[in-house]
Amino acid sequence: MIPTGVDLEIVNVDVKDIRFPTSLGAHGSDAMHTDPDYSCVYVTLETLRGVSGYGLTFTLGRGTDVVKLSVLTLKHLIQGRNAGEIFANFSHIWRSLTSESQLRWIGPEKGVTHLAVAAVVNALWDLWAKLEGVPLWRLLSTMEPELLVSTIDFRYISDVITPAEAIEMLKKAQEGKEERIEELLKTGYPAYTTQVGWMGYSDDRIRELCKKYLELGFTAFKIKVGRDITSDINRCQLVRKEIGYENTLMIDANQIWDVEEAIEWVKRLSQYKPLFIEEPTSPDDVLGHATISRALRPLGVGVATGEMCCNRVMFKQFLQAGAMQFCQIDSARIGGVNEILSIYLMAKKFNVPVIPHAGGVGLCEMVQHLQMWEYTSLTKSMKMIEFVDQQHDQFIHPATVVNGKYMAPVAAGYSTQLTDEAVENYEYPCGKEWQRMFAEGIFEEIKY
Amino acid sequence: MIPTGVDLEIVNVDVKDIRFPTSLGAHGSDAMHTDPDYSCVYVTLETLRGVSGYGLTFTLGRGTDVVKLSVLTLKHLIQGRNAGEIFANFSHIWRSLTSESQLRWIGPEKGVTHLAVAAVVNALWDLWAKLEGVPLWRLLSTMEPELLVSTIDFRYISDVITPAEAIEMLKKAQEGKEERIEELLKTGYPAYTTQVGWMGYSDDRIRELCKKYLELGFTAFKIKVGRDITSDINRCQLVRKEIGYENTLMIDANQIWDVEEAIEWVKRLSQYKPLFIEEPTSPDDVLGHATISRALRPLGVGVATGEMCCNRVMFKQFLQAGAMQFCQIDSARIGGVNEILSIYLMAKKFNVPVIPHAGGVGLCEMVQHLQMWEYTSLTKSMKMIEFVDQQHDQFIHPATVVNGKYMAPVAAGYSTQLTDEAVENYEYPCGKEWQRMFAEGIFEEIKY
Repeated sequence: MIPTGVDLEIVNVDVKDIRFPTSLGAHGSDAMHTDPDYSCVYVTLETLRGVSGYGLTFTLGRGTDVVKLSVLTLKHLIQGRNAGEIFANFSHIWRSLTSESQLRWIGPEKGVTHLAVAAVVNALWDLWAKLEGVPLWRLLSTMEPELLVSTIDFRYISDVITPAEAIEMLKKAQEGKEERIEELLKTGYPAYTTQVGWMGYSDDRIRELCKKYLELGFTAFKIKVGRDITSDINRCQLVRKEIGYENTLMIDANQIWDVEEAIEWVKRLSQYKPLFIEEPTSPDDVLGHATISRALRPLGVGVATGEMCCNRVMFKQFLQAGAMQFCQIDSARIGGVNEILSIYLMAKKFNVPVIPHAGGVGLCEMVQHLQMWEYTSLTKSMKMIEFVDQQHDQFIHPATVVNGKYMAPVAAGYSTQLTDEAVENYEYPCGKEWQRMFAEGIFEEIKY
Repeated sequence: MIPTGVDLEIVNVDVKDIRFPTSLGAHGSDAMHTDPDYSCVYVTLETLRGVSGYGLTFTLGRGTDVVKLSVLTLKHLIQGRNAGEIFANFSHIWRSLTSESQLRWIGPEKGVTHLAVAAVVNALWDLWAKLEGVPLWRLLSTMEPELLVSTIDFRYISDVITPAEAIEMLKKAQEGKEERIEELLKTGYPAYTTQVGWMGYSDDRIRELCKKYLELGFTAFKIKVGRDITSDINRCQLVRKEIGYENTLMIDANQIWDVEEAIEWVKRLSQYKPLFIEEPTSPDDVLGHATISRALRPLGVGVATGEMCCNRVMFKQFLQAGAMQFCQIDSARIGGVNEILSIYLMAKKFNVPVIPHAGGVGLCEMVQHLQMWEYTSLTKSMKMIEFVDQQHDQFIHPATVVNGKYMAPVAAGYSTQLTDEAVENYEYPCGKEWQRMFAEGIFEEIKY
């Protein structure tokens, strides 16, 4: 299960700033992020054997260069090491990346430096799965519980979960695993769409997209709210009219409100029966989310958050405080697969369903693996995975949704490898498409 | 009070990576940061008028370049603007820096990007005080409450404090202000020293330093703990023997423990009667600190934290949850003076004393201003300010401690301007001293 060989030396760590000009179409726009250019920092780990691991972290355009530089500061901790030895001591290597004695001051374990760790760690997992010749979800699903748990750093969460407890949870979920794997391969995993309600879209476009996604087999829809209440009421009405009350509606405020404001605003939208309000306030405000949760519980509206929750210590507290009823892990904000596993385990302990964030560059590709592992090997129950139909064609093995369901990936790895064309066209600022757009005056090149 | 004039246009934003080779002497070493090279990102804002503002954020060596690049991504928000107009709309400008629509994804308001904001915002305050011809603490102390409060962004803290409440607090503290200013100028403000107990120091050195600082008039001493309990007991005994029980001892674990471990470890050190245990666990663990606080209260040991607390939302929760008995703001981790003012106001509301973190490059220089304002204009009571005797000679107006007391700064500004020599010698990697050390093989230049 742990690959070995001197030819597993990581001989090169390559890092690229890749940006897609999505702001041109208001794709991805919300109350806080009005003009995102969906981007990523893209890490390639080359081994002597010739097998490479690809990893990425999602960004919104400006600042991708900052995260790229942060990855470069970690390069010396990975380059020249043997990948097999990394996997055999993964929690220690993970801590060396997150707790480097000088670098931790500018984190620790949050923001730029943790996004950088995510890109590197995700590339390591892609490499591991490729070396085993299986998709990541199957690698995780077939790992012995002891090995899987050995990859996790339990620092700062041992008051809520211990390695022994985690192993026991996983062992309890072994029964019927093969059947669940078969089922996944046959039927896929439910998706929900955020595509119908970006902030920048017109009413007509929203109507048209609701119809489109209903026809595509989707039964759950999320829209952006928080800019003004009249518009929100209008959008909720519009979508409910299209999808009916037999389908699921979710609303997402992207951190626009203060605590009291969130409660008052969502009360007014509660008549449209949203399953949850996502990111009602600051992603750091555990106690604020707990207050909002208590206020909205009688109305049947849950609180969801997590895409900007910066590390396992914050997730731990959200769970402890009853501050999230839906846990939205992101595959590239916290420190990669190792740390995400610890959050799945804590969520299971607190009986909080994980409904992952996705939609940015590569996020759907990655998170499907995690959620499928969770189904086969931890909770035995399927929830939903967010789906946004953007940038998938930039990947060699794109996430594929059919009849409103993610098809289980079959290619080896973590589905994180971009096409050569994507890199050639969209590397910033030297890629062909960027050079063209600079020349045509569509964008101005950022220079400091 | 708000300077005006077209010549207040900020015509250049210069950013430098400055590193001092402190790892050569184990200065600043603790349980988590074993080999820091005390460093800073140094921002100069030049105006047409010829007056410049200097601001910095503290770093530990590696990664300073990442924060520098993060400042460069903010440059377009400041360069070309009129400083007077910035001050007149300071909370909006502050939000434009912390909530830039693409950059906020790689924060928000934490880690690298928030350190970068701190450097810029601190430079703006230095400029403001210089334009008024007064030290920052006097600028703050003489500002009308309405103007001071107008600089604060209350987003995400309005459930705990409102602008109106803040103005009222400040108005209540007006009486006797002139007398307090006079007193400060005459007697200074109490300092405590961390100099006696860095992790890398020998017993003899600790003894010698205790004697030295007692003679210098200090009455409060902090030492590092957390590497091993036997050594900690030895160090506590050693220091108590030198300073007696009539002086104050504090202990600092720099985040080394998990929650349960912290409680057990500190129980064993409680016989040495430390005033507080600083950073017992993850700086993000509000609920963990609350648990530790409850466990240690019967032993008379308080919990202190804050130097790595990433923003006002986290401080808000530490205060709400009773998770800190001593609030240790840092002048350069959160978003500069504006945000720090909001934390002082919340701490006052919760009746928690602020005892600031200092000691890194420029931190003593800056934090003395804040704490002196707090005394004259908010709480009317003096506490302590950390003092470490390092890198002060690199500043044009160094923090000055006499008889264990910080002397009130008299030079205009925020005491943040480095000497030309410091910049020439220690800019990384091109400074003269770094070039010499590379040539002599004392350090290897970092190249990616």
